[in-house]
Amino acid sequence: MAHSLDVLALGNAIVDVLARTDDAFLSSQAVQKGAMQLIDEERAESLFAAMGPATVVSGGSAANTAVGAASLGARVGFVGKVRDDELGHLFRHDLQAVGIRYDTAAATDGPATARSFILVTPDGERTMNTYLGSCQTLGPDDVDEALVAASRIVYLEGYLWDPPAAKEAFRKAVAVAHRSGNQVAMTLSDPFCVGRYRAEFRELLREGSLDILFANQHELVSLYEAADEESAVAALRQEGVLGIVTRSSEGALVVSRDGVQSVPAFPVATVVDTTGAGDLFAAGFLAGLAAGRPHVDCLRLGALAAAEVISHLGARPQQDLAALARREGLLG
Amino acid sequence: MAHSLDVLALGNAIVDVLARTDDAFLSSQAVQKGAMQLIDEERAESLFAAMGPATVVSGGSAANTAVGAASLGARVGFVGKVRDDELGHLFRHDLQAVGIRYDTAAATDGPATARSFILVTPDGERTMNTYLGSCQTLGPDDVDEALVAASRIVYLEGYLWDPPAAKEAFRKAVAVAHRSGNQVAMTLSDPFCVGRYRAEFRELLREGSLDILFANQHELVSLYEAADEESAVAALRQEGVLGIVTRSSEGALVVSRDGVQSVPAFPVATVVDTTGAGDLFAAGFLAGLAAGRPHVDCLRLGALAAAEVISHLGARPQQDLAALARREGLLG
Repeated sequence: MAHSLDVLALGNAIVDVLARTDDAFLSSQAVQKGAMQLIDEERAESLFAAMGPATVVSGGSAANTAVGAASLGARVGFVGKVRDDELGHLFRHDLQAVGIRYDTAAATDGPATARSFILVTPDGERTMNTYLGSCQTLGPDDVDEALVAASRIVYLEGYLWDPPAAKEAFRKAVAVAHRSGNQVAMTLSDPFCVGRYRAEFRELLREGSLDILFANQHELVSLYEAADEESAVAALRQEGVLGIVTRSSEGALVVSRDGVQSVPAFPVATVVDTTGAGDLFAAGFLAGLAAGRPHVDCLRLGALAAAEVISHLGARPQQDLAALARREGLLG
Repeated sequence: MAHSLDVLALGNAIVDVLARTDDAFLSSQAVQKGAMQLIDEERAESLFAAMGPATVVSGGSAANTAVGAASLGARVGFVGKVRDDELGHLFRHDLQAVGIRYDTAAATDGPATARSFILVTPDGERTMNTYLGSCQTLGPDDVDEALVAASRIVYLEGYLWDPPAAKEAFRKAVAVAHRSGNQVAMTLSDPFCVGRYRAEFRELLREGSLDILFANQHELVSLYEAADEESAVAALRQEGVLGIVTRSSEGALVVSRDGVQSVPAFPVATVVDTTGAGDLFAAGFLAGLAAGRPHVDCLRLGALAAAEVISHLGARPQQDLAALARREGLLG
């Protein structure tokens, strides 16, 4: 069938509350640098009260990917749960403003729209503390079967394993996509997320639920509990999926049974905030697939989009990614 | 008496919703580039729906000045009216996070916290569309006489003439400050604001309500309906106040009966967003006064703070201004 969307992304609908800080503050708050940890509402209040002046930008891993892919010309939809509050309104606006189809009904009661308190240290590293709020009410009823069937690729985040019913939404999307002959992509999200759900994520691969897997080197090593990155990549090659492995400043790989191809990272003058680096890499790769580009060009688009997003505060692009890509000869 | 605060700032409590755009969008929305215009709630909704992805950062002219002065080591308080909603909570947090005393009770009903939709063009110019929301409920009862009496300088924004009862709060603060032997500073805010309230602003000068006046060259020319900047500066010299005149990339002047001193602008690699340039200039100048520095050093501190804020999106500093000032030898 003809697809009306290139990518339908499913993920936690989160607004990021970013503040610059230092390592001493991370220690004083007993948060693990570089990780994403889940917090409850009370902790959210106390952490917010303690942290510095904030910049608020819509976030959410799969939503960031959706925005990046749309900015690169892909036809994109999003599924995720906000509440009908001010931050939910902001989140919806920021998707629709870049032409993303986003129809998931807002919750009209229950917890507020999710927020992630992101502490950015002078080295550009981000440490995330996420209150899942209304994301906890996402369930399979929010997955529109016709929309999944009309989407060439369904893109899912590993973080969906955290809220109670979201993995059912995830599984429903997988089933409908495959029944419709469409592809399923997933990101492993975070090494700690992999630690929480390793067995289930490996089962998703084993049972053939995934066609494309995005991971960074740490997530991949955690997934296979491998001795090193090389053996983790070797294990991934045996899964029969298209694997995309990001390696921070070392660039990225595309991995399949056929072999491994790599590209270097795109140069960045100053790394301000790494929030969204992996999300935007996935955005570039997916947009490249949608445009019918070879895999190495898809990697390059990913590297380009990631470089833009780490050069400023916040995980949503601030420059016209399509114009950047055209300048690099990566989009027509 | 001993002052417990160096600066008490009174102003509209506003959260900025910033988006990058182009001149064509400004034309299509019939907004005047570079100006601040007031909009109602309906227009706020339609403009937000039409504009691009947003970055949300606390703003408000006098509040920006308060934050900058506090970041430079001054003891600062703020008076302004938010509602008890999410954006009001953010606004309050962002003042308290830098150590500003902010006790004004939030409105518990009526309009939402004010927001300014700020459109930033590729040349760095900002165009502001402000929905005053809960600022419309600020009145003289919000001015704590003891706090004004304990503040060495009360700093007021011309924009306070826009909401219905805020000018009464302004006048009360002036009366209490002068009765206590303290100083009153005012910013003219915006050339269009001067156009709306020229006669009243000139009367404030004539009647001796102001000791320090901040203005940019356009506001000053408008105030005196002068033929050029030179004659406007000459008119200001006759007022018997300490005048601080900012001149964009041409630097700034301090003007009094005794003469005129000038400093150049502080160099900036790329002007990203001019929102808050004047506010942070005032912050630097006031912090210099609080630290007992000579006027020319106060101008330099203003130029430094303004340079920091125009080098990124949003009107609140993202770097440690005191550290920058120490590096330049402007603070001990």
